[in-house]
Amino acid sequence: MRVGVMGAAGYAGIELVRILLRHPDFELVLITSNADEGKRLDEVYPAFLGASDLAFANHDDPAAFELDAIFLALPHTASMARVPALLDAGVSVFDLSADFRLPDADVYERWYETPHTCPELLAKAAYGLPELFGDDLVALRDAREKGEPALVACPGCYPTATTLAAWPLVAAGLVDGPVIVDAISGVTGAGKKPSARTHYCSANENLEAYGVGTHRHTPEMEHNLERAGQGTHPVLFTPHLAPLARGILSTVTVKLAREASTDELLALYHEAYDGCDFVGVCPKGTQPKSASVSGTNNAQVAVVSVPRTGHAVVTAVIDNLGKGAAAQAVQCANIVFGLDQTSGMTGLACAV
Amino acid sequence: MRVGVMGAAGYAGIELVRILLRHPDFELVLITSNADEGKRLDEVYPAFLGASDLAFANHDDPAAFELDAIFLALPHTASMARVPALLDAGVSVFDLSADFRLPDADVYERWYETPHTCPELLAKAAYGLPELFGDDLVALRDAREKGEPALVACPGCYPTATTLAAWPLVAAGLVDGPVIVDAISGVTGAGKKPSARTHYCSANENLEAYGVGTHRHTPEMEHNLERAGQGTHPVLFTPHLAPLARGILSTVTVKLAREASTDELLALYHEAYDGCDFVGVCPKGTQPKSASVSGTNNAQVAVVSVPRTGHAVVTAVIDNLGKGAAAQAVQCANIVFGLDQTSGMTGLACAV
Amino acid sequence: MRVGVMGAAGYAGIELVRILLRHPDFELVLITSNADEGKRLDEVYPAFLGASDLAFANHDDPAAFELDAIFLALPHTASMARVPALLDAGVSVFDLSADFRLPDADVYERWYETPHTCPELLAKAAYGLPELFGDDLVALRDAREKGEPALVACPGCYPTATTLAAWPLVAAGLVDGPVIVDAISGVTGAGKKPSARTHYCSANENLEAYGVGTHRHTPEMEHNLERAGQGTHPVLFTPHLAPLARGILSTVTVKLAREASTDELLALYHEAYDGCDFVGVCPKGTQPKSASVSGTNNAQVAVVSVPRTGHAVVTAVIDNLGKGAAAQAVQCANIVFGLDQTSGMTGLACAV
Amino acid sequence: MRVGVMGAAGYAGIELVRILLRHPDFELVLITSNADEGKRLDEVYPAFLGASDLAFANHDDPAAFELDAIFLALPHTASMARVPALLDAGVSVFDLSADFRLPDADVYERWYETPHTCPELLAKAAYGLPELFGDDLVALRDAREKGEPALVACPGCYPTATTLAAWPLVAAGLVDGPVIVDAISGVTGAGKKPSARTHYCSANENLEAYGVGTHRHTPEMEHNLERAGQGTHPVLFTPHLAPLARGILSTVTVKLAREASTDELLALYHEAYDGCDFVGVCPKGTQPKSASVSGTNNAQVAVVSVPRTGHAVVTAVIDNLGKGAAAQAVQCANIVFGLDQTSGMTGLACAV
Repeated sequence: MRVGVMGAAGYAGIELVRILLRHPDFELVLITSNADEGKRLDEVYPAFLGASDLAFANHDDPAAFELDAIFLALPHTASMARVPALLDAGVSVFDLSADFRLPDADVYERWYETPHTCPELLAKAAYGLPELFGDDLVALRDAREKGEPALVACPGCYPTATTLAAWPLVAAGLVDGPVIVDAISGVTGAGKKPSARTHYCSANENLEAYGVGTHRHTPEMEHNLERAGQGTHPVLFTPHLAPLARGILSTVTVKLAREASTDELLALYHEAYDGCDFVGVCPKGTQPKSASVSGTNNAQVAVVSVPRTGHAVVTAVIDNLGKGAAAQAVQCANIVFGLDQTSGMTGLACAV
Repeated sequence: MRVGVMGAAGYAGIELVRILLRHPDFELVLITSNADEGKRLDEVYPAFLGASDLAFANHDDPAAFELDAIFLALPHTASMARVPALLDAGVSVFDLSADFRLPDADVYERWYETPHTCPELLAKAAYGLPELFGDDLVALRDAREKGEPALVACPGCYPTATTLAAWPLVAAGLVDGPVIVDAISGVTGAGKKPSARTHYCSANENLEAYGVGTHRHTPEMEHNLERAGQGTHPVLFTPHLAPLARGILSTVTVKLAREASTDELLALYHEAYDGCDFVGVCPKGTQPKSASVSGTNNAQVAVVSVPRTGHAVVTAVIDNLGKGAAAQAVQCANIVFGLDQTSGMTGLACAV
Repeated sequence: MRVGVMGAAGYAGIELVRILLRHPDFELVLITSNADEGKRLDEVYPAFLGASDLAFANHDDPAAFELDAIFLALPHTASMARVPALLDAGVSVFDLSADFRLPDADVYERWYETPHTCPELLAKAAYGLPELFGDDLVALRDAREKGEPALVACPGCYPTATTLAAWPLVAAGLVDGPVIVDAISGVTGAGKKPSARTHYCSANENLEAYGVGTHRHTPEMEHNLERAGQGTHPVLFTPHLAPLARGILSTVTVKLAREASTDELLALYHEAYDGCDFVGVCPKGTQPKSASVSGTNNAQVAVVSVPRTGHAVVTAVIDNLGKGAAAQAVQCANIVFGLDQTSGMTGLACAV
Repeated sequence: MRVGVMGAAGYAGIELVRILLRHPDFELVLITSNADEGKRLDEVYPAFLGASDLAFANHDDPAAFELDAIFLALPHTASMARVPALLDAGVSVFDLSADFRLPDADVYERWYETPHTCPELLAKAAYGLPELFGDDLVALRDAREKGEPALVACPGCYPTATTLAAWPLVAAGLVDGPVIVDAISGVTGAGKKPSARTHYCSANENLEAYGVGTHRHTPEMEHNLERAGQGTHPVLFTPHLAPLARGILSTVTVKLAREASTDELLALYHEAYDGCDFVGVCPKGTQPKSASVSGTNNAQVAVVSVPRTGHAVVTAVIDNLGKGAAAQAVQCANIVFGLDQTSGMTGLACAV
């Protein structure tokens, strides 16, 4: 399968390049970046010196229409401007932007403050969180085998960690009321564009909340949890920035609908995730470390019951560029193309 | 005033030394550390090269009993073992341990799992959070002027940030139900003793929750908030470790008892803290940065109303070794000794 | 004395602001930044919340001409464009740019690749490294007392550390041949402007040399060492960037002209620097830590003889924004205005 | 091939585990750690949750004698105590300690201040730097195929980077006099054992030289360069510690024996390393970044001529745990076992 990455010079894009260059089943033949057009990959990212002779093409390069699949690591709105033509050309699309994540165009337009230009495609798109909604990807695989190109809306980083954390409790009907999400992200989450906020000397030795009550990943989390079939749970989401490059830790606090011990809750999580290649449940008494999943498609989750107040606290870690973006997109592509979902993604985090 | 620091080689202790060596009104004449006994201060901490000829004495050095005041930067239980004799000798004590923070010995014994050896002193101790409970310190000052040595229980780092964050809302009767506290700390919070957890290569590029539902600062927060006179609010506290040396960001989420705009909430915070030398309220639309208060006794607080879910999110930053430990202890000492509370603590954080 | 900082929003500028706001003898009344004109200081740098009501003026604000002294934290060429008019108005100038550091306009023009627009002022300027060239500052002080405004060329960060490291050996005639300088800087050294290189995710977990053989601080080092009166020593300077915000470690390697033990070399350094308020010589067997001087005007130096190869290795640490820029500029101003040179700069580095 | 790692819980050991668990040709069946005996791998290093059911055995576990090969990640002296018996049992040994790196037992004993207990094996050992001394490994491969177990002395981290940097210049006879090596290492280089020096709060925001003139990697560098056949070049080695986990940057400064342009020098490096799977030569005008090789077996090298002083400055980056330890050991094992040398090591550094 010949694949490409559009927006390959951004942080999610370059992580896709890193994975796809070593993928046994996909051949990466096109990378695009308007800002770096014409430059060699290893000039912009010297980590690839000796590993590839690719150079960045323009987003408008017609070679995109000849591919089996393309990964779009573009900003929202830029993605939906390109998706219809790609699908028409028979190219399967794995879109890392927010443009096809929310099934309701109205919700999209309210949170993203821009009209949706191809709402008719929303129903076609599968939300690419395979551990919970894998059937949708299998359906795309089957359709693709009959000639219909796939459109996968790859989840946001915070929604991936948070949904994996909250789902088993919500699905079991154990959550009473709102879902309080306090998450911490590394600085890659703020993107590649240099800014005052991402300057080393601003981010270093600093902790800071941002987007309090208004972050656009909120409706994505709410919609995901609604799919658990236990009604609507409002999500109150407070993201924080901490001085590390990669990693998200999402801490989810919920009021339990009834008494439940940590053991009972853990059993739910094991039931939900045992057998999942990429989600580990931490042993009782331990908490997940974001470093344990850095550079991988792995997630780790822990759950604790706090009987003193009647809450449960669930923590989940992912690499925001891995399971939170590029690696999960490749996992989806593996499924849609009928491969083992771990293909090309067996690497382990540096333990140190 | 001749003062000393017991446990001066630990992180809170050495920060006390840093402040006291440059304090215009206190003369630092005794520093103790059993592990470093006999070593020069600048041998153990070369930042003091040229600044002091002090050397570490043993905790049992009788010179302690000749001081006007001593700062105890000892582990809990070690403090209460020494306080009665110091008070008997007429030495005012500023205790940075947890031993005298909780007025109820039973609560102490339950959370700290050890008997309290001098519960009769609990009623004598003032809890040293001057912005909220300054009257208690003024009372100690008056008593001290009549010859009675003071005992100040200096607050824990997380309770300082969290209480400053939550107080105005709680005091206004605006909090309905529990107080959810997700806080992030730098690694100095884990103390000076080298361990697997504080190894650079473990803490670097890692995020991790710990002590979920069981952290000993929980009853201290609950007790503080109870003093606001609006009943009991259970605190659910989840601390996190992030890769920085100094700083705490406490994010407090509460259900509002009634609708209230951000502007209304901000007015409460300005009423509570305007005129406070060390607490700043962030302008609407901005969030506090822990770097802004690093190395100082300052705190900064922001409050946001989230009408969509009916909550308020309050964030507060402090330096865990500054306002969260050593600097606040000196602020208390300034008050107890009748000085301007800012004496010796006018330094500003490195903005960069 | 009423003073101002031009270019106050840059990293050296804001460090000047931090020092001058708490300086007992200077009153900071003007800060300028064209990019931030009209904004409050605490809006751009919230560390100053509650500490100052200053707002940024334009560089062309005529208030500059009414000051006793102004600190110029402007890029090279921008400084020399403003200095003549300021001096004409009787304002003493402490220039942190490179424009007046090299006494020979030809050397300046060769390395900085731009014409010098006021070479006639070069002879008037004193190079502000008080420990070595303090007499020049005293001469400016005397002239100023007779009404002549001073012009001080504040040293570059690398030359400050390197000159302090190499001087005693060079002055003693112990250096045979070139001076090899490998220095490491924190990211503040690259300035405030966000760029790919200063993005947190580029600088973090990365080491990199830059400007090999071509860094503009080279002639400044060579000129300084020539003033030791032992002829010319070519300097080969290789700077490196490491993941920290503040700090320079300069490692100077020289061939010894004759055998000399570490003890003998250490004696030279003690002779040179004992009694200096801001330069500490590390005890034998220890190496200076950049953290020990962070946020201060301090320097620490160690020297080791390596008889096996016949070399000496000297290491020096400073804070590149402190002794390497802003704090040293204030030290010079203290001297020129007849104050104690430590005035306003007694703060100690956070030892932790 | 069934392999084991002795000392698997240390930093080099666990990196071996990370590589070997995903190696297509080696099966990792034994990991030992006396301190962690009996604990599961994923208990000690949760990055391996779900990836392996291995548990740590004791170093004395007899299973070691049944293996095809064992990697020894033990301290010096501990290695040589075990090597003879392993070889006798027919197990090939890849030793990451210093015990078999220096061919002369006297030199070993002088620098390591301990007797060598099996000097007769020194002549049997190959020094495992395949790009320069690959023939020795091929000879071991041939002998192994005839039934003789191999003994490979895996190079030290600093010698790997420094030898790769200096070799082409030295071999070309272009070096006049000593080789000045200033290298910077991340904190993993200091090992896993928690200490004051490796505490996050000591290493963070700090730069520091150590072991000036006395580091034990010096004779290893000197011996390597002597093998270039251009006589003896004394090495003056100054290592530095910087705040990152992984990575070494070695900056090598030499006096050129004759004038030579950067272009001419670059041609030498391309001749030496083009075609090497793991060594990249940086394009003219660029410098290697340690981040570019993090987590891999890659090295990158740049060379610059500085005609102004007649020197060349060569910089090389490696991951100290990768090419500087574990990955290079696997590269050696690949060669000795007749595999492609890249087997199991095609991963690329996270570019971000």
